[in-house]
Amino acid sequence: MKNTKIVLAKRPIGLPKLNDFQIIQNDIDLVKDNQVSVSTMYLSLDPYMRGRMSPSKSYTKNLEIGEVMTGEIIGIVNESKVKNFPKGSIVLSKAGWQSNPVVNEDQLSLVDSRIDPVSLALGSLGMPGLTAYFGLTKLGNPKSGETVVVSAGSGAVGATVGQIAKSMGCRVIGIAGSNEKINYMTENLGFDEGINYKDSDWTEKFKISCDQGVDIYFDNVGGPISDCVIEEINDFARVIVCGQISQYNNFEPELGPRNMHKFLIKQAKLEGFIVFRWEDQYKDGLESLLDLKERGFLKYKETIVEGIEKAPETFLKLFSGDNLGKLLIKVN
Amino acid sequence: MKNTKIVLAKRPIGLPKLNDFQIIQNDIDLVKDNQVSVSTMYLSLDPYMRGRMSPSKSYTKNLEIGEVMTGEIIGIVNESKVKNFPKGSIVLSKAGWQSNPVVNEDQLSLVDSRIDPVSLALGSLGMPGLTAYFGLTKLGNPKSGETVVVSAGSGAVGATVGQIAKSMGCRVIGIAGSNEKINYMTENLGFDEGINYKDSDWTEKFKISCDQGVDIYFDNVGGPISDCVIEEINDFARVIVCGQISQYNNFEPELGPRNMHKFLIKQAKLEGFIVFRWEDQYKDGLESLLDLKERGFLKYKETIVEGIEKAPETFLKLFSGDNLGKLLIKVN
Repeated sequence: MKNTKIVLAKRPIGLPKLNDFQIIQNDIDLVKDNQVSVSTMYLSLDPYMRGRMSPSKSYTKNLEIGEVMTGEIIGIVNESKVKNFPKGSIVLSKAGWQSNPVVNEDQLSLVDSRIDPVSLALGSLGMPGLTAYFGLTKLGNPKSGETVVVSAGSGAVGATVGQIAKSMGCRVIGIAGSNEKINYMTENLGFDEGINYKDSDWTEKFKISCDQGVDIYFDNVGGPISDCVIEEINDFARVIVCGQISQYNNFEPELGPRNMHKFLIKQAKLEGFIVFRWEDQYKDGLESLLDLKERGFLKYKETIVEGIEKAPETFLKLFSGDNLGKLLIKVN
Repeated sequence: MKNTKIVLAKRPIGLPKLNDFQIIQNDIDLVKDNQVSVSTMYLSLDPYMRGRMSPSKSYTKNLEIGEVMTGEIIGIVNESKVKNFPKGSIVLSKAGWQSNPVVNEDQLSLVDSRIDPVSLALGSLGMPGLTAYFGLTKLGNPKSGETVVVSAGSGAVGATVGQIAKSMGCRVIGIAGSNEKINYMTENLGFDEGINYKDSDWTEKFKISCDQGVDIYFDNVGGPISDCVIEEINDFARVIVCGQISQYNNFEPELGPRNMHKFLIKQAKLEGFIVFRWEDQYKDGLESLLDLKERGFLKYKETIVEGIEKAPETFLKLFSGDNLGKLLIKVN
């Protein structure tokens, strides 16, 4: 048995290219004390990974050249030297883009048995779901009747944000980049409106759709889409900065219209966050998400691509917007 | 006796010009029931007035052409048909740029007798002082040892912000546009550092001065100065947007580097405010400011220009930065 792993070969300039990654096959490492060997079932692909490929310091240490790409996996324990994770356990780990990693005990957690299918532990019942839940409720404080706009509204985080907001009685407008995504948001997820930002008249449509103004903007994309949403904010609006995917491949900071004066006259708030901030409350967050799922507010779609060697090209779909819902690699 | 008043003659394009204003002399209005006639002592000139001259809607109704320029005055009641404001009372009113206005009871308040000199009711013990106090304490939540940066640090609001922050044990860096202002901040007001943004190497000096990063940025100016400060924010920093004077004369929104990603990775917050938000707490705010003054933390300077007809040209000094401290017109 071999471990296939994908490492950072070169730092991307702009949009990553396939040869920024390198696929390496090694024998599986020996399992030492306090370690387990995992057979990866699913690898999660998420926009934040682009940041880790850059030289500039972000909120956590970035990757060195030659290091295994960052990422969360779920898998089955094949061999164990840890009592709490016996052979056959289904575990979650930040082991990165690897098919058969050997992982230390402190890098493991058990997947809650109520999570079904298990892949949701990487999606709406995992980090993206917790990101949506804590970001929206802690920073947005949504009230029934308020208008919530979410960019990348059909994505793993956005779809959850919109559904949680609906469960709280908000009016929800999702922004995305294809008619398929718009239909998914309005017909499957129950959003009130969906706006396709690739339509030439999308800004007019958007203004009509939020004629009561915007109370909460949950932003996953940044750039000109955010400019347009921020134009429509109400008094005491909350702008929650979760992601800025439109900016991640920029070599130099993009210019945009200065809009701080808008925050002044509207007495509005903008706040960035990283979900680790509420790590001590993840258990409560999961209970809330399970409850929402039970009540029908956690519908989801997954795009699952088979084969770890497909991870680099699949990862790039996040930037072209070619995937629908949560993007996963099925590994073993 | 005549009332001299200054009205908006034309909407300015860019920086206001003298002929955007018109000086008018009329007989003093008759004093009706629930009204008093006031002899203006001081008129306050403040940056927000520029916004009221624009056609675009701001946080409150803007001026119509021909309307008296917005502004706070203090004056002495000359004739009264209101029991609570007898002849001789010293009052505060939003009567605008007028020498002898007749004012309705509901537009008046008495100046607290502890405010000495009375001009401070328009400065560090008035709206600018309350703006500094509530903005910094409510939105900034300063903690001892934190680094607070204030732009327009020698101005009526900025000088108060910096001194309140010093009273709470913070390290304070003021930004202003002349060496006289820098000396005033560091030698009179007790700021730890002053940075002259007109120095060619100011950004390097600034970075050295805040090598521990910025925890709170109280922003009165916006534009490139803010870009530079926001580059240095720490985790969980608070950016308080009080004014954006660098932008008020722009005809079109200026472009600047997009910096939302900085707020994301630093989990930082930006919030705009208008002091009216805490109107129900003004009394408590004044008590706190009087206490700070008692403890030596409310030093101030005033630039006082005589003659209401000088108000337009004096107002323009706010945009050229030619005044030091609180800008007032001495009227009668």
